[in-house]
Amino acid sequence: MPKFDVLAIGNAIVDILARCDDSFLEENAIIKGAMNLIDADRAELLYSKMGPAVEASGGSAGNTAAGIAGFGGKAAYFGKVAEDQLGGIFQHDIRAQGVHYQTEPQGLNPPTARSMIFVTPDGERSMNTYLGACVELGPEHVEEDVVAESKVTYFEGYLWDPPRAKEAIREAARIAHDNGREVAMTLSDPFCVGRYRAEFLDLMTSGTVDIVFANKHELLSLYETEDLELALEKIAADCKLAAVTMSEDGAIVVRGKELAKIAAFPIEELVDTTGAGDLFAAGFLYGYTQDRSLEDCGKLGCLAAAVVIQQIGPRPMGSLKETASQAGLI
Amino acid sequence: MPKFDVLAIGNAIVDILARCDDSFLEENAIIKGAMNLIDADRAELLYSKMGPAVEASGGSAGNTAAGIAGFGGKAAYFGKVAEDQLGGIFQHDIRAQGVHYQTEPQGLNPPTARSMIFVTPDGERSMNTYLGACVELGPEHVEEDVVAESKVTYFEGYLWDPPRAKEAIREAARIAHDNGREVAMTLSDPFCVGRYRAEFLDLMTSGTVDIVFANKHELLSLYETEDLELALEKIAADCKLAAVTMSEDGAIVVRGKELAKIAAFPIEELVDTTGAGDLFAAGFLYGYTQDRSLEDCGKLGCLAAAVVIQQIGPRPMGSLKETASQAGLI
Repeated sequence: MPKFDVLAIGNAIVDILARCDDSFLEENAIIKGAMNLIDADRAELLYSKMGPAVEASGGSAGNTAAGIAGFGGKAAYFGKVAEDQLGGIFQHDIRAQGVHYQTEPQGLNPPTARSMIFVTPDGERSMNTYLGACVELGPEHVEEDVVAESKVTYFEGYLWDPPRAKEAIREAARIAHDNGREVAMTLSDPFCVGRYRAEFLDLMTSGTVDIVFANKHELLSLYETEDLELALEKIAADCKLAAVTMSEDGAIVVRGKELAKIAAFPIEELVDTTGAGDLFAAGFLYGYTQDRSLEDCGKLGCLAAAVVIQQIGPRPMGSLKETASQAGLI
Repeated sequence: MPKFDVLAIGNAIVDILARCDDSFLEENAIIKGAMNLIDADRAELLYSKMGPAVEASGGSAGNTAAGIAGFGGKAAYFGKVAEDQLGGIFQHDIRAQGVHYQTEPQGLNPPTARSMIFVTPDGERSMNTYLGACVELGPEHVEEDVVAESKVTYFEGYLWDPPRAKEAIREAARIAHDNGREVAMTLSDPFCVGRYRAEFLDLMTSGTVDIVFANKHELLSLYETEDLELALEKIAADCKLAAVTMSEDGAIVVRGKELAKIAAFPIEELVDTTGAGDLFAAGFLYGYTQDRSLEDCGKLGCLAAAVVIQQIGPRPMGSLKETASQAGLI
């Protein structure tokens, strides 16, 4: 038995979350619903304009790793923080969740990455990410034994933003496939897809990536179309398995000619969409690595997403295992 | 018109909040519901045992200052952080709330104070506070013009724990009274009362403090009795005005022979009691400095407390002003 169900690789980020009105986004030229990349100066400027906030460990793949562990799965994580207080918080939280995390923190400069996340009254989150220490991640941080011992190695498309992380991913994918494992990725963000469309398509068609997670906007951006049916056909041809989330419309999973539609889980109140896609991937991959049906994988994904969007912050505060058990899913 | 409604002085702390079971408290010898003072070594040990957490600016008087500003009042704050990331977070949050806060951060060692707060399934919080940079607060940090220009100077009994903060308080109280202002304190914690009972009583009977906030446990501890009636009589004699909170039983306010009973605000779900007393004081002092009746002050206090105990973390994420307006209180 492999030691880990899922190894997740991503930008190691601490989230700084505050509510704001839509006018704040406009005044500060923040693209709503997107991940806006910012430099240190803009980070300082935006923070000076941000209201009172709360902090929580985040990072897309970090949230997924924490979610898998929250279901009771065995998860590992690679990602780079600095030797500062935010880095200490990130390390603490992911390890406290039971995730294997041994990437060495490195120096004080650049500092640990942070994302200022503005949550509008409609619950939508708009992220402003300063990558900080994440720019240091490279192939030297790939723990070969962990990759070899993980059923699935999962990474964020966001990793194409820092300079050398993509080398780490190519190395990890090689090790994974050499050991008969699978490789998964999330397309992360429609603008991220815009920046790296050709490379992402190449990762899929070259077989570097087996499983792709995307939301509807990312999928449509990938194939530069408004036609969801067409985009689903294309992604079914370009990778072995794709899971596409569609907010309140649930998710669609395609594997070759197989297609499963999964309804969204009912929620009481949409509080903050931060982490929705990350937690969908967590639930799905937890089910997938337990050899559950595609439909069950999708249901576990929708359940985890429903939990996280009913709270502030990117990682569920309660036990996903308990919630899934109460829902009769595990 | 004085420039500020309330100046609050306290230990400047960042909270680290996580859920735990009651057995965790027992196994780690944490006194439930109390503020447990810890040193750097125990802070490290407890953090290593703590589950995934979230961070939020806290500190009792800091929460009160933020709450007063949240109602639309004019608040100022004195408290000491270090020049580190947690200090930056503390500074940001209180200023972003509109509170005047100019206490200079100082060096990297000791670091900014933090309190590990464990929230049990019943919603009770048990705090473990490492005072860090708070030990540096002294009379040199008293901004004389701010004290002179504040209707009420409010401080925490917790300030008797660091070595020189009490000198700052005595100096601030002198300036306040010289300028015809009032001085208020909270008894903070039953064990804190146990440590400094004689000094707290002396602050009251000497007229250094005019207004006292306490919860029932602190009041009973102050007078070493189990008789609430008797304790209320005594505190009415020992200070000009006292507000005593009693959780779901609301609050009692006494001023000389005057007594007002205030019912607790109904809540949907008790999530986390962190900040309940601090926010009661915020609502009360906001009303008090707007010359509202004792009963209205009590109602504003109970409202703010009800808001904060229905969320994780010590400062309300929504607008207190809006909530109070919807409740017809302002």
